[in-house]
Amino acid sequence: MRPSKRAPDQMRAVSFERGVMRHAEGSCLVKFGDTHVLVAATLEERLPPWLKGQGRGWVTAEYSMLPRATHDRTRRESTTGRPSGRTQEIQRLIGRSLRSVTDLVGLGEKQITIDCDVLQADGGTRTAAITGAWIALYDCLAWMRARSMVKEIPLKTHVAAVSCGIYNGTPVLDLDYAEDSAAETDANFVMTGDGGIVEIQGTAEKTPFTQEELLSLLSLARGGVEHLVALQKAAVA
Amino acid sequence: MRPSKRAPDQMRAVSFERGVMRHAEGSCLVKFGDTHVLVAATLEERLPPWLKGQGRGWVTAEYSMLPRATHDRTRRESTTGRPSGRTQEIQRLIGRSLRSVTDLVGLGEKQITIDCDVLQADGGTRTAAITGAWIALYDCLAWMRARSMVKEIPLKTHVAAVSCGIYNGTPVLDLDYAEDSAAETDANFVMTGDGGIVEIQGTAEKTPFTQEELLSLLSLARGGVEHLVALQKAAVA
Amino acid sequence: MRPSKRAPDQMRAVSFERGVMRHAEGSCLVKFGDTHVLVAATLEERLPPWLKGQGRGWVTAEYSMLPRATHDRTRRESTTGRPSGRTQEIQRLIGRSLRSVTDLVGLGEKQITIDCDVLQADGGTRTAAITGAWIALYDCLAWMRARSMVKEIPLKTHVAAVSCGIYNGTPVLDLDYAEDSAAETDANFVMTGDGGIVEIQGTAEKTPFTQEELLSLLSLARGGVEHLVALQKAAVA
Amino acid sequence: MRPSKRAPDQMRAVSFERGVMRHAEGSCLVKFGDTHVLVAATLEERLPPWLKGQGRGWVTAEYSMLPRATHDRTRRESTTGRPSGRTQEIQRLIGRSLRSVTDLVGLGEKQITIDCDVLQADGGTRTAAITGAWIALYDCLAWMRARSMVKEIPLKTHVAAVSCGIYNGTPVLDLDYAEDSAAETDANFVMTGDGGIVEIQGTAEKTPFTQEELLSLLSLARGGVEHLVALQKAAVA
Amino acid sequence: MRPSKRAPDQMRAVSFERGVMRHAEGSCLVKFGDTHVLVAATLEERLPPWLKGQGRGWVTAEYSMLPRATHDRTRRESTTGRPSGRTQEIQRLIGRSLRSVTDLVGLGEKQITIDCDVLQADGGTRTAAITGAWIALYDCLAWMRARSMVKEIPLKTHVAAVSCGIYNGTPVLDLDYAEDSAAETDANFVMTGDGGIVEIQGTAEKTPFTQEELLSLLSLARGGVEHLVALQKAAVA
Amino acid sequence: MRPSKRAPDQMRAVSFERGVMRHAEGSCLVKFGDTHVLVAATLEERLPPWLKGQGRGWVTAEYSMLPRATHDRTRRESTTGRPSGRTQEIQRLIGRSLRSVTDLVGLGEKQITIDCDVLQADGGTRTAAITGAWIALYDCLAWMRARSMVKEIPLKTHVAAVSCGIYNGTPVLDLDYAEDSAAETDANFVMTGDGGIVEIQGTAEKTPFTQEELLSLLSLARGGVEHLVALQKAAVA
Repeated sequence: MRPSKRAPDQMRAVSFERGVMRHAEGSCLVKFGDTHVLVAATLEERLPPWLKGQGRGWVTAEYSMLPRATHDRTRRESTTGRPSGRTQEIQRLIGRSLRSVTDLVGLGEKQITIDCDVLQADGGTRTAAITGAWIALYDCLAWMRARSMVKEIPLKTHVAAVSCGIYNGTPVLDLDYAEDSAAETDANFVMTGDGGIVEIQGTAEKTPFTQEELLSLLSLARGGVEHLVALQKAAVA
Repeated sequence: MRPSKRAPDQMRAVSFERGVMRHAEGSCLVKFGDTHVLVAATLEERLPPWLKGQGRGWVTAEYSMLPRATHDRTRRESTTGRPSGRTQEIQRLIGRSLRSVTDLVGLGEKQITIDCDVLQADGGTRTAAITGAWIALYDCLAWMRARSMVKEIPLKTHVAAVSCGIYNGTPVLDLDYAEDSAAETDANFVMTGDGGIVEIQGTAEKTPFTQEELLSLLSLARGGVEHLVALQKAAVA
Repeated sequence: MRPSKRAPDQMRAVSFERGVMRHAEGSCLVKFGDTHVLVAATLEERLPPWLKGQGRGWVTAEYSMLPRATHDRTRRESTTGRPSGRTQEIQRLIGRSLRSVTDLVGLGEKQITIDCDVLQADGGTRTAAITGAWIALYDCLAWMRARSMVKEIPLKTHVAAVSCGIYNGTPVLDLDYAEDSAAETDANFVMTGDGGIVEIQGTAEKTPFTQEELLSLLSLARGGVEHLVALQKAAVA
Repeated sequence: MRPSKRAPDQMRAVSFERGVMRHAEGSCLVKFGDTHVLVAATLEERLPPWLKGQGRGWVTAEYSMLPRATHDRTRRESTTGRPSGRTQEIQRLIGRSLRSVTDLVGLGEKQITIDCDVLQADGGTRTAAITGAWIALYDCLAWMRARSMVKEIPLKTHVAAVSCGIYNGTPVLDLDYAEDSAAETDANFVMTGDGGIVEIQGTAEKTPFTQEELLSLLSLARGGVEHLVALQKAAVA
Repeated sequence: MRPSKRAPDQMRAVSFERGVMRHAEGSCLVKFGDTHVLVAATLEERLPPWLKGQGRGWVTAEYSMLPRATHDRTRRESTTGRPSGRTQEIQRLIGRSLRSVTDLVGLGEKQITIDCDVLQADGGTRTAAITGAWIALYDCLAWMRARSMVKEIPLKTHVAAVSCGIYNGTPVLDLDYAEDSAAETDANFVMTGDGGIVEIQGTAEKTPFTQEELLSLLSLARGGVEHLVALQKAAVA
Repeated sequence: MRPSKRAPDQMRAVSFERGVMRHAEGSCLVKFGDTHVLVAATLEERLPPWLKGQGRGWVTAEYSMLPRATHDRTRRESTTGRPSGRTQEIQRLIGRSLRSVTDLVGLGEKQITIDCDVLQADGGTRTAAITGAWIALYDCLAWMRARSMVKEIPLKTHVAAVSCGIYNGTPVLDLDYAEDSAAETDANFVMTGDGGIVEIQGTAEKTPFTQEELLSLLSLARGGVEHLVALQKAAVA
């Protein structure tokens, strides 16, 4: 039995609130249950130096948690002086995930920065961030299209992410914090709207897992991502 | 005429939403018009080293803005490696303001950290933060009282803050961003529920101001703080 | 009775020694009693990037204390890795104060950096620094005029600063360290040669103050600044 | 055809040289073709603070590349001031991989730090590091057993790692630099001596991959790890 | 002919002003011509951790230059975030030099920190600092003796330092800035009151030097140090 | 008797292994007994900004030790955030030593960076690094000559370095770690192939040394450097 009483293949309630940040070209408050992430997409003219003059744009991401998003207060990274290894790992993942579905040539020589700030954490912050970031990115690109900066929205498809894990011996979908801290194995899956796998990160700190277990997690993830993509489609319809 | 059409002594719409952060002992989303600050109060057992064993507690504050709280995106302070001078000035001000109304002996040897994170900025973020922080602090202390950690809520009175300035030659209350960036003079006033002045920060980068102007700003501020204290009282009633 | 036996409205002995640094375009060793600050004004061709091409110059300031300027040794900020919040707050104040009386268009596209290094501290280092910095800035501008880099000295008026506070219930002028650490309220006033107020920073960490107290401090400060401006005039005559 | 003329399922020449660092309790120079990593295992009495008094030890890792390990010189991380995101991601991976096969209770309240310094890089530095680190860790634990600090070597099994990817449409084993930079998809697999999966990191920045492709990479990786474990067994026999 | 018209073996005018810093246990303003260094000696109870419980004390030094001590303004090390290599090299040299003549067992378990702040630079700042630091250290130790913290002043002898160099082919004593920047070779010599050599740092970036040249520089330095020691004796008599 | 049984004027076994780093333009693994340093020379087009357009090149050096090069593990400088004072002092010394024998005009507007990474330390790492760096620099310049980037190898002569010290009252050549940590005095000598002195760094933290002792160390060093230069000549023949 899961702590939340959910069925093994049941996601938490997911919602997207668009346009919540007045100044941003695109923004979204995404909720996976009690995990709340505020995402802003910012359009900028300047590119990273190594990309200049190649006729392509760039999508990058930053990720942070408010100090009291977590059960115990976490120190601010501005006072520790640097983003932690975990933070950097997550923001690199978000960036790669979004670039995998963006037509960077279609975007042109512009950069879009996606800020993902976790207001409240209950497990799965990186997967909620990726899923909500797609909405903010879409709205930023729609903003550009409305101003004739792009002809079409330069997105190849949707991208969404979900975590799965083996909890008390059972494969379950969309781990919350109680499950995440007790799971034998957990894996994050990033997949596209047409079913392609963009990223798998599977880790077994306690007990190694088998190929069969990997496949059962992948199967759960596929169902979860299909559900998330359907919600994304409804949100931007 | 003010850009917002407000009368010179008219504040923006102010609201407090309590209990918005699931993990925090006290929290408040405060809005002064389009300025939105999320405040969390965290109770911690550890004191700053220089305060140990003196039978008193401490209240401190941290302040930050989300990168896209502002019209143009601001760099994250975790990537610049340190809180800016402006950030440090503001968080010292918030801490002093709250300590001025807290009975630190009544609190006992505990520390309360107030995190003020600006979700959206339109001028007056520090005054909104102080005003909302009083609510979060109150709720944190009420949480302690409910657990018999304190007998009475160790607050002497309310504290609230507002900015005033001379805009187009007229003293006006509660500057928004459009006014703030054009004002000849601006001043922040922190005052208590019984009318005492805790802090005045008045600055005239363009034209020095006179004693009469100072008094007219102080008079506006007094009215503004009275209004804010009334709203605080209603919020915690 | 003040620890120094001074009358409530009596300043410490103030002196300016000009031209004490061989390499600087302007320099001044300013003493407010046992508070000694060495000020150097440096003329530089380079402007902050955001100011280029606007036909205006800039005046900025840095502030530091020698480690043993204070009663106990203070750690060097080069070993802590960053200027403290207090340091940044003070150097921003010095810069704003000087810019308020400088004709930045008359200066032309040049920057003057004012270094204020406290050799010995006994309270009031920031007010001594501002007051002495006006002398060093004046001498730097006179150096420029002597080389026909400016026609007139681009200063609109004098600027000077003094602290006041309520000590043992009595408003007093120019707090020394013994008074400053015991005062209920203290305030720094920066005022111009023609009586305008440039900056007020009033703080009551212990007991809030009233409007009447603020006005009595302001009155003391006005007298103090008039005295300082007269000494500045004598020094550069 | 692979640039190195290898068959799709053919690893590079792999070798382990034990005991190469005079001062270390365990050490190993591991080579995967032209990728050379020097690994040192250091036994220390001190534990991370959060682990004290729990009757368990810890294994952690650090990773670095010499500046000219790479084709173009890379800046030293001591001059950039911090380990990069990539470095932190890799050292966290190495630590997790080794802990997954270590009996931390059997180790007792001690910490072993594994330093992996890349002398020369040609793709697959993290997988070579994990594979060689097992040897250095084994030798460090054998050093402890010889001194009766542990009764048995507290290792549950072997652990080794290899990368696979889809290069020119074909799944291939053990990517070198030329393949790695051109591959559509690449994945790192960390597996134990008894076939369990400890970690999968699969990334498709260009084209998403399918479940079938994932399984073909996993099958290649399984063969590679079996080969590496056999070589580890021969090395410590 | 030297730029300053001095004879090859002629030092600049040297002076010591004792007791110039009100708060310090010992202090000295030392001048070697236009090179002015303010030295403060601070007595502290705390020792470096690695020295605790060994019945010995420690003498350490820090060195800094005011930004406008030099012809062009130098950036403050608090803004670059760290002491430069040159700064660290100099402060290590000053510390070693003073420790070589201090009876650390006689000092007892205390630390004396010597702060050397260059107010004005014209070559030879490190040699002036060492020479003046001996005075400040002596006065700090005399302060301790006056309070019966030590029975005798725990100094074995004097220590002083001077630079020499080959300028236009001639060995000269006590280089000023004009000579220092043009010299083929320069060397700093630290020597004790009884003629022992504590430190030699000789550098030839342009042309290597010979043993004969080294000996002629050493001979000049010996004369210079004898002169400095005589002045130190007169100063503390 | 020396711990290693060597005669007072006997160096440790010295060897050079050239071309050990596949990517570097020049490289050398130099061994002075158990002290092993891996040196890489990197040719870069970019010059330090202050050298641009002067028709000259530059040679600079960086130095580091692997964490377990030493008996106890040393913290990585990427985690302390900065190169230590000792590291900076050594890398400045290596750079100066190499520049003293390089024809910088002959090199042209290019920079060569010498990376010296200590794989194993047993005293004398800086002298081994300088001596091996000459080989790596030579090979880098030969690489350039082979590509007609320079006509002749722009080296004026050889440069090599050795340490000497007074151990148990006897002057000895090429201190190993056991001697270095016990020596009364030690000195590093950098000398050229034609006998010129480039750098002397002599330090006596325990007992000051005499001119006679200095000369006996210099005499030992001269013999050691002659031996090293002969080995360098054999290595590049």
